[in-house]
Amino acid sequence: MSLLIKNGTILSTTGEYVADIYVENDVISLIGKDLNVKADEVVDAAGKYVFPGGVDEHVHYGSFGGLLFDTADAAAVGGTTTIADFAPQDAGVPLIEAIERQAAKAKGTCSVDYAFHGIIMDPKDSVFEEIRKLPEIGVATLKLFMAYKGSPFYCDDEAIFKAMQIARDYGVTMMVHAENGDIINVLQKQLVAAGKTDPVYHYYSRPPLVETEATQRAIALSELAESPLFVVHVSTRGAMEAIRDAYNRGLPVYGETCTHYLTLNLENLAKRGNDGFEGAKYICSPALRPQEHLDAMWEGIQRGWLTAVGSDHCANTGGYEGAKKKGLGNFAKVPNGAPGVQDRLAMLWTQGVETGRLTKQKFVEIFATAPARMLGLPHKGRLDIGCDADIVVYDPAYRGKITNAASYHGTDYNAFEGFPMHGIPEKVYLRGTLMAAAGKFVGAKGKGRRQRCQTYGRCFEYVSR
Amino acid sequence: MSLLIKNGTILSTTGEYVADIYVENDVISLIGKDLNVKADEVVDAAGKYVFPGGVDEHVHYGSFGGLLFDTADAAAVGGTTTIADFAPQDAGVPLIEAIERQAAKAKGTCSVDYAFHGIIMDPKDSVFEEIRKLPEIGVATLKLFMAYKGSPFYCDDEAIFKAMQIARDYGVTMMVHAENGDIINVLQKQLVAAGKTDPVYHYYSRPPLVETEATQRAIALSELAESPLFVVHVSTRGAMEAIRDAYNRGLPVYGETCTHYLTLNLENLAKRGNDGFEGAKYICSPALRPQEHLDAMWEGIQRGWLTAVGSDHCANTGGYEGAKKKGLGNFAKVPNGAPGVQDRLAMLWTQGVETGRLTKQKFVEIFATAPARMLGLPHKGRLDIGCDADIVVYDPAYRGKITNAASYHGTDYNAFEGFPMHGIPEKVYLRGTLMAAAGKFVGAKGKGRRQRCQTYGRCFEYVSR
Amino acid sequence: MSLLIKNGTILSTTGEYVADIYVENDVISLIGKDLNVKADEVVDAAGKYVFPGGVDEHVHYGSFGGLLFDTADAAAVGGTTTIADFAPQDAGVPLIEAIERQAAKAKGTCSVDYAFHGIIMDPKDSVFEEIRKLPEIGVATLKLFMAYKGSPFYCDDEAIFKAMQIARDYGVTMMVHAENGDIINVLQKQLVAAGKTDPVYHYYSRPPLVETEATQRAIALSELAESPLFVVHVSTRGAMEAIRDAYNRGLPVYGETCTHYLTLNLENLAKRGNDGFEGAKYICSPALRPQEHLDAMWEGIQRGWLTAVGSDHCANTGGYEGAKKKGLGNFAKVPNGAPGVQDRLAMLWTQGVETGRLTKQKFVEIFATAPARMLGLPHKGRLDIGCDADIVVYDPAYRGKITNAASYHGTDYNAFEGFPMHGIPEKVYLRGTLMAAAGKFVGAKGKGRRQRCQTYGRCFEYVSR
Amino acid sequence: MSLLIKNGTILSTTGEYVADIYVENDVISLIGKDLNVKADEVVDAAGKYVFPGGVDEHVHYGSFGGLLFDTADAAAVGGTTTIADFAPQDAGVPLIEAIERQAAKAKGTCSVDYAFHGIIMDPKDSVFEEIRKLPEIGVATLKLFMAYKGSPFYCDDEAIFKAMQIARDYGVTMMVHAENGDIINVLQKQLVAAGKTDPVYHYYSRPPLVETEATQRAIALSELAESPLFVVHVSTRGAMEAIRDAYNRGLPVYGETCTHYLTLNLENLAKRGNDGFEGAKYICSPALRPQEHLDAMWEGIQRGWLTAVGSDHCANTGGYEGAKKKGLGNFAKVPNGAPGVQDRLAMLWTQGVETGRLTKQKFVEIFATAPARMLGLPHKGRLDIGCDADIVVYDPAYRGKITNAASYHGTDYNAFEGFPMHGIPEKVYLRGTLMAAAGKFVGAKGKGRRQRCQTYGRCFEYVSR
Repeated sequence: MSLLIKNGTILSTTGEYVADIYVENDVISLIGKDLNVKADEVVDAAGKYVFPGGVDEHVHYGSFGGLLFDTADAAAVGGTTTIADFAPQDAGVPLIEAIERQAAKAKGTCSVDYAFHGIIMDPKDSVFEEIRKLPEIGVATLKLFMAYKGSPFYCDDEAIFKAMQIARDYGVTMMVHAENGDIINVLQKQLVAAGKTDPVYHYYSRPPLVETEATQRAIALSELAESPLFVVHVSTRGAMEAIRDAYNRGLPVYGETCTHYLTLNLENLAKRGNDGFEGAKYICSPALRPQEHLDAMWEGIQRGWLTAVGSDHCANTGGYEGAKKKGLGNFAKVPNGAPGVQDRLAMLWTQGVETGRLTKQKFVEIFATAPARMLGLPHKGRLDIGCDADIVVYDPAYRGKITNAASYHGTDYNAFEGFPMHGIPEKVYLRGTLMAAAGKFVGAKGKGRRQRCQTYGRCFEYVSR
Repeated sequence: MSLLIKNGTILSTTGEYVADIYVENDVISLIGKDLNVKADEVVDAAGKYVFPGGVDEHVHYGSFGGLLFDTADAAAVGGTTTIADFAPQDAGVPLIEAIERQAAKAKGTCSVDYAFHGIIMDPKDSVFEEIRKLPEIGVATLKLFMAYKGSPFYCDDEAIFKAMQIARDYGVTMMVHAENGDIINVLQKQLVAAGKTDPVYHYYSRPPLVETEATQRAIALSELAESPLFVVHVSTRGAMEAIRDAYNRGLPVYGETCTHYLTLNLENLAKRGNDGFEGAKYICSPALRPQEHLDAMWEGIQRGWLTAVGSDHCANTGGYEGAKKKGLGNFAKVPNGAPGVQDRLAMLWTQGVETGRLTKQKFVEIFATAPARMLGLPHKGRLDIGCDADIVVYDPAYRGKITNAASYHGTDYNAFEGFPMHGIPEKVYLRGTLMAAAGKFVGAKGKGRRQRCQTYGRCFEYVSR
Repeated sequence: MSLLIKNGTILSTTGEYVADIYVENDVISLIGKDLNVKADEVVDAAGKYVFPGGVDEHVHYGSFGGLLFDTADAAAVGGTTTIADFAPQDAGVPLIEAIERQAAKAKGTCSVDYAFHGIIMDPKDSVFEEIRKLPEIGVATLKLFMAYKGSPFYCDDEAIFKAMQIARDYGVTMMVHAENGDIINVLQKQLVAAGKTDPVYHYYSRPPLVETEATQRAIALSELAESPLFVVHVSTRGAMEAIRDAYNRGLPVYGETCTHYLTLNLENLAKRGNDGFEGAKYICSPALRPQEHLDAMWEGIQRGWLTAVGSDHCANTGGYEGAKKKGLGNFAKVPNGAPGVQDRLAMLWTQGVETGRLTKQKFVEIFATAPARMLGLPHKGRLDIGCDADIVVYDPAYRGKITNAASYHGTDYNAFEGFPMHGIPEKVYLRGTLMAAAGKFVGAKGKGRRQRCQTYGRCFEYVSR
Repeated sequence: MSLLIKNGTILSTTGEYVADIYVENDVISLIGKDLNVKADEVVDAAGKYVFPGGVDEHVHYGSFGGLLFDTADAAAVGGTTTIADFAPQDAGVPLIEAIERQAAKAKGTCSVDYAFHGIIMDPKDSVFEEIRKLPEIGVATLKLFMAYKGSPFYCDDEAIFKAMQIARDYGVTMMVHAENGDIINVLQKQLVAAGKTDPVYHYYSRPPLVETEATQRAIALSELAESPLFVVHVSTRGAMEAIRDAYNRGLPVYGETCTHYLTLNLENLAKRGNDGFEGAKYICSPALRPQEHLDAMWEGIQRGWLTAVGSDHCANTGGYEGAKKKGLGNFAKVPNGAPGVQDRLAMLWTQGVETGRLTKQKFVEIFATAPARMLGLPHKGRLDIGCDADIVVYDPAYRGKITNAASYHGTDYNAFEGFPMHGIPEKVYLRGTLMAAAGKFVGAKGKGRRQRCQTYGRCFEYVSR
């Protein structure tokens, strides 16, 4: 099976150029002008952009009430060919086993390539010890939650600090969900007691400082543990600046933001809609922010303070009607999360490249190249010889809108409904095989392969060992 | 009973001038040149400095293993005429009652005037509710501990945040002991397990970042609670800068440091002495720091980032031999604290004024005026008409050394042993009555009076209510 | 001649108390409760505040087109009893001689006490050498201009740096007018060429960055020269923060702001009035700022980043009609400056103390105590025994408005016209002699005395020599 | 003429991969595995690194007493295939003409490709107007000097500000040499007058603050002019942080450092050698710094605060013996500058990549890709299809030392003499033609082509127009 993409304008992180790409045996084997080779499939990409398939380092399938991997077709349709999923650890299940259980669910079901992050939800010494073995199963990242105190997700500083000490020695990158669980607990109860139960109070129960404080604390913990740190879903100016300033001081501290923290704001959470509850569609944690924070997130990407943009995709089983509405009368009971894996490309391109907030080079970096590097997947996120032939042929002339009707994520709403699409992934190839075309999934389902992540990744770059 | 102090050079926070001071009925009633009044006691202070009796806003009597108020003569001998003691709350004892029990111990025993700070050691809603009543018993400050996780002292962020919300509304100034208890727990265990049990490891179990992190967190909590904050015993550059930067941003955040964080350093903690254990004399929390932090503390006072210097006096019952040595073989078991109430003046003057690090005006401010204002005691810390006649006549020509032999603190060592004394409080008056003379306690014991502190004090100055 | 002020509430920088003050031979000789002394004049100050006469460290008499010292009665009426005037140096006139010439003008003419700052307007080595002799004539401060390039005021960095090197060694405090003259020149010409000639363009010809840049540069020059620095008339957040941050880093860098930078803003400059030119009344340099900078100035005083508030009084001969209007059709030709020495107290009290932006203690500090200390006049600005009996008896109950009709400054408008007065200086004493009463000048004219300033003043406090 | 480089490990800014590169007609036309093409020249690069030829954005040929372009073979030998030279403007010569004169000198003489930066040395309105025409002759960068007051190089702030205003509108990137000329003048004279004339005093005549101040000022000027700014040869922590913080605030402010500010320090300047004058070899401006600043420069590159590393190559005609020694007895008379174009690669690789201070990806970025982008040369600095075939085949196994004997720069010393070389450019191709091999120049001389730079380059990326 071979593929030849002709005359496209190839985008990389450093430039753009017109060339043909030839793919054989899953990988890119030839790039050149006017290639004179035969191929099973030949695509004319003249006037189109050609860039690496997206790498979404932050998705949730089957955990936190999310749908299963069979809905990952949405990724492919949205130009994302690799996802990194957070494997939940149920109580009593060892860390490694929990990840393998999650992997088993993905196998044969997921239509794009997938890797895993560990999550510690049962913080105890025997689990910390398992961190050493993560590299053996191709897992090089581990996430802990500073929020959700009272739930199994929560880890106190003692747990985080211990985990960091071990992770550092084994080249595993530590990730944290940084929100102060104590304050949230107090505010949630006070708001509900005061009858402030609408979705918008989700924001007031976890104001920006709650995230900024926890981010500062995570940085201090990592500094003491001499451990690299990757802060997930950064959403506030304060947290972004804490990461930036730590990095400025020479610490190996990095962060990502998410599509929605760039493009949706507190006004979405305040939406009432027909049933007075529409804001619930936008309930995720951290909460959507006032616009000034969105501006800070764009700045963070441009300036390089934040190294990636994940979707934090979590399409609730039941969706708005069946899941979100469980929280009618109490925002604290609304299941968190929203879909987004399909829309990351459309939003970054249309709201970023088209507005002048991102160069096309920066777009490629944050959409594909940087997250692949962060995950330890050197054969992803680049269109170099020998790399996996995960390729998007993008038609920049297309004009449309995001709709849930056109979404493959399997739930009953789309948080980005109505946003314009300037351009569309006309063809999306996974290791040389066409998976999606102009908004339709056209591939064989479940063809994604598990990816083994390399240890001592991006965050360890300048850490002396 | 009247007193006339003649020809002294009176020091205030803004200048100095030669005048006579006349005292009647406990208070200063006349200041002038060549006063032509009769008095029961006439003192010639020519060539001497005359300044307000010290106010030490941070002492521990009878709590944390400390000696009782009968040893507070040391304060008087050291030129300090008012102390503010931290009243411990035993489990199950209501907050107000705990303070009154402590007050009962001081009554008739304490030789200098005394006020109280509350401490919450039993954090629960009924105790938080008691904060409202603190002003009624003349208590306007309340301290919570972020350290000592696992002990009754410890409060989690939830408790601190709730207490702040109430304290703010009632004009009570919130104080925190800012050290991250989680990290300390981990490090202590790891060090002990590694056989690192000498006193110096006390420092390594609570490195500077442990304090800096907690200080940042306390500031975030207070910012969210819109509560003024006073951070006690600041000892690191990072914590000092966090306070400074918060204040710069317009937040009502203040801090004190202590005598020993200005003058003793990590080398003291590393002392081995005859028994290899001498460092234990210097075990207090936060731990003594490397010299760079001491420099930062001096800067903090000069520049006004820190508004007071307390002694954190805590003379252990049993002293070095009987108490400190309980921790032989395990630094974590050494009772915390050291005496210091008698030496605050000598150290500030000799190490501060005499070295050019403090002006005499700044000395008066931090030794007496500022802490009185912080505590809400407007009749203390100043030599103005109507103020309590708490007066030090200081002979700057005296040359001697600090020795435990000359110390009234009742324990068997002095952490400042051997430090030079440039000058001595030749006379110390409490409300017009001579209490100490040239290093000797000469007053009647137990004549101190309980002081009622005013609410909405210094930290609330620019807080809009 | 003696004076007894009874029952007033005396305000100091650290507190307030009710007492009587007795004055004999120009100085304060007795303070006490219910003084039983006879006096030539007895004043009942019950219900009134009693505080030190104001010290205005920044006035211009007879220079820059300003009126002469015979209009300094305004100071007395406004509660200011000491002024420090900037003595201009005409070309070819030695520095010392220029100051003595200015002093001769004040002698027998000025109704309040006066001191002088030198100004270098003829920067050359022989003039720099004269700096050594300034202390001999009681001058301890020296100002150089970074603005007005092309005029005799201007000094380039070379001149400033050399002057700093000498001033430092002789205990003379260096002051700078910090605005980048080059940029102003370019912008002025471009604006005028573009027909933008209204008074408001004065602001656009010297935007905030012009001041911030020059302030940063002055700080760098002083850091290299190891010289203390006092930046006059700070008006921007950026400049204030540069001073604050330099001070934070341990540098002896200080600054003042002025009444109008706290209370008048860009909207005043944009006023058109009847003749479309009213804004010219407010033309001074630096220019009035947008409101955010005014907020920063209040913060600067509160927080201590700025140590004084001068009036920068400069009442133009000819006033609005005869002087300001020379600039009709070209803002760059409008003589700079506005009156203000009479209004400093009213504005600080009404806009500061009454709004909660200043405590009464902070008011005393910036109105009198701090500028006296900055100038090296230890017998001014405090109500201590032996200090000059410069005293304001202030009636806080008075309600009125600032009007030019009631102004003694001798010009035809008042920049603060219509501002409310909460309180009035009911009595103003200069060395024990009544000079003003309830808004009227009632003293003998020309009774001010020249003051000798001490070297190595406030800015040298922590400079090791 | 065609070329095939087989089996090399190709380095890019984002990764590395093994592939063959085929070159035809000057450009890269094919990249792939096991290419089955014929070529005039076939190179086996197995075990070697293959990366883009270096782009040195900062060289001086024929100006400032430097040798002419015929010595640019050194660039090729050192793996640099494109240089950007600063064209001096002699008095009275229009800007455009000055550049064309310089270009005429390079034509047929320079062995690597070359572009030009303009320099304004005759600042007047007619010259500023010429900035508009720079794009027409392929010049997109313009440098002004804040140092060398009194010489034709110097521009005052007025000139810089005006030039910025025009440059911004025409997409020309403004560069500054940022040192405060006034202070240097004063210090130079004082040092020489004090008999401090040895080369090391060059440093004391231009201490770090001199550069930091000017950098801050240049940033302020550019902020006011709304102009992008590129600060050349940054050498101090302060200047680097000023650039970083400006960039953090969203300003389009960038900077480069140079090889010697990363690797040579004040100790070199203090070298005495046989004749007591060896330090003169290292006299360049800014001066070499104490080690802490070198550490800051490495940090600046790693972290991305500085976007390039130029050589500031300036090999004096006459060299050490004939030129530098003119300054015997007076450091201020030593001609500035040192060679370095040949050594940039060796130093960055050996001191950067081999020590772990740079990843191989970061090395490619600062050695080639970033400077090409900064200059507006999209066909340089990358190994993408259609780009100029400027290629280095690097043998990382080579071990040697830098010696002047092996240097092609034409002068009599090498500032990096004796530094180790880990690796060597085994082959250096300029547009597909072999120019250098294993340290020898083997190409035809004078084959470099003039490059036209694109306007609105890197520094304008996020500037809204």
